[in-house]
Amino acid sequence: MTLLRGQARPAEYVQTGYWSSKPIAEARREGPVRVLWTGADCEYKRLPKDEELAFSEDASYLHYVSNETVEGLQFHKVLGRDDVPRICDMSSDFLSRPCEAERFSIIYAHAQKNIGPAGVTMVLIRDEVLAGANTDLPDFLSYGTQINSHSNFNTPPVFSIYVTLLVTRWLLQQIGGLERMDVINQHKAGKMYQFLDASDGFYRGRAGQSDRSLMNAVFALPTPQLEARFLAESCEAGFSGLAGHRAIGGIRASMYNALSLSAVDQLLGFMADFQRKHRS
Amino acid sequence: MTLLRGQARPAEYVQTGYWSSKPIAEARREGPVRVLWTGADCEYKRLPKDEELAFSEDASYLHYVSNETVEGLQFHKVLGRDDVPRICDMSSDFLSRPCEAERFSIIYAHAQKNIGPAGVTMVLIRDEVLAGANTDLPDFLSYGTQINSHSNFNTPPVFSIYVTLLVTRWLLQQIGGLERMDVINQHKAGKMYQFLDASDGFYRGRAGQSDRSLMNAVFALPTPQLEARFLAESCEAGFSGLAGHRAIGGIRASMYNALSLSAVDQLLGFMADFQRKHRS
Repeated sequence: MTLLRGQARPAEYVQTGYWSSKPIAEARREGPVRVLWTGADCEYKRLPKDEELAFSEDASYLHYVSNETVEGLQFHKVLGRDDVPRICDMSSDFLSRPCEAERFSIIYAHAQKNIGPAGVTMVLIRDEVLAGANTDLPDFLSYGTQINSHSNFNTPPVFSIYVTLLVTRWLLQQIGGLERMDVINQHKAGKMYQFLDASDGFYRGRAGQSDRSLMNAVFALPTPQLEARFLAESCEAGFSGLAGHRAIGGIRASMYNALSLSAVDQLLGFMADFQRKHRS
Repeated sequence: MTLLRGQARPAEYVQTGYWSSKPIAEARREGPVRVLWTGADCEYKRLPKDEELAFSEDASYLHYVSNETVEGLQFHKVLGRDDVPRICDMSSDFLSRPCEAERFSIIYAHAQKNIGPAGVTMVLIRDEVLAGANTDLPDFLSYGTQINSHSNFNTPPVFSIYVTLLVTRWLLQQIGGLERMDVINQHKAGKMYQFLDASDGFYRGRAGQSDRSLMNAVFALPTPQLEARFLAESCEAGFSGLAGHRAIGGIRASMYNALSLSAVDQLLGFMADFQRKHRS
């Protein structure tokens, strides 16, 4: 609404999975949209290669999603051209690693993965992006209104914001900042993927290796029956939330900031046991 | 957006103060609006009388605000015609008393007065209202989307919802329901206004007597200097939040569900002392 309504130049979207598909449908209500690349043909099992992305210099903006939680895909570099506004939905990996924020025109991220409880969304927006933006919007949908009222246009959800404060303090004081958080997250995900790769095909990772998400490891077992059994037994063993997203099924182990290395180790211990018991 | 966009028949709005003025400006973006009555000329010191309200039978809908927190005004009956959709913003008195919900097409109310922490908003909407409504809206702004996904279209703000559950249980189990809550609120406000009326004009209530709010008592002292002193001394005595809204100044004592009768008594004790000390 802010950047595309009334625009003649198309906005470019990279369609890499479940979450990046949602804003494409919404953007089409507002103006011309060009899907620069879609992973639909490969069931969103990989991200585009550099040579598959022909960014236009006259696009209104480029939009992409840095981490696809459902398919377990994550970009490990910044996409697009520096002369076209770059907009990124970082909902599922913001504050999990450094993000070169200065290269983006808008970054938005809901809290409920790495930042705090549901109810608050971070928006980082460059002043110059708003200068040419559509302002004929309901007040509460206008970034300008929110900025002018110092994010107090509505009564703010104080509890979610307070916990977010505590989490950012924890990141700075206990963890030691985003570079250190990144090292920890790489370590957790490294162990997980190393284990999957060493399972002789019992646990089959979904995502192409170079596109694997540090946040969400998505994998399958040899049969749907074994997957159902895995979910039941893991639940009994005290592990929750391992079912894959309803859109694709399978298993998903999410490893957001709050998940400790020890929790990953415990899950891998369970997975090794399960494999020994159920390998036919 | 839902009921007025693309409509030829005007929506009717009753302008009784700060909060009911906000949606009038927003509605005008969407379609024809008729302000049925405005309290602007009397500085929003009273509500309209029955004979001042000529409701049209062909209005798209009637919108009003049941309690004006800034001016301390509250409707003590349901407005409008039963054959025109009745929409009410009950943000500041929902669950403070019974509300004849079945007579409204839409009731909406944010949580943060009587219901729970900021971050969640209640919407009650009749199925038949949506049947003829505009559906060409962004998904997240469409009531239909929210209903079809059982209020889980976005990750719900679980903490705010959980506390709301606890508050509704408290209302049912500890208080004994809305009729009992109403009795308590009438008792609290009754003591407050009785005290103001007996102060020989030292504390001057703002609202017309029959339109006084059970939630917010708004009053003035003889001089701005005395008001500043009142705020400073009350703060020292442990009372917070007594400054009137920045839009009109003065003093405001809010008496939402969570405020006890004993707290009202303590404030009135302070006010009596203050009056004795400062009566010139």
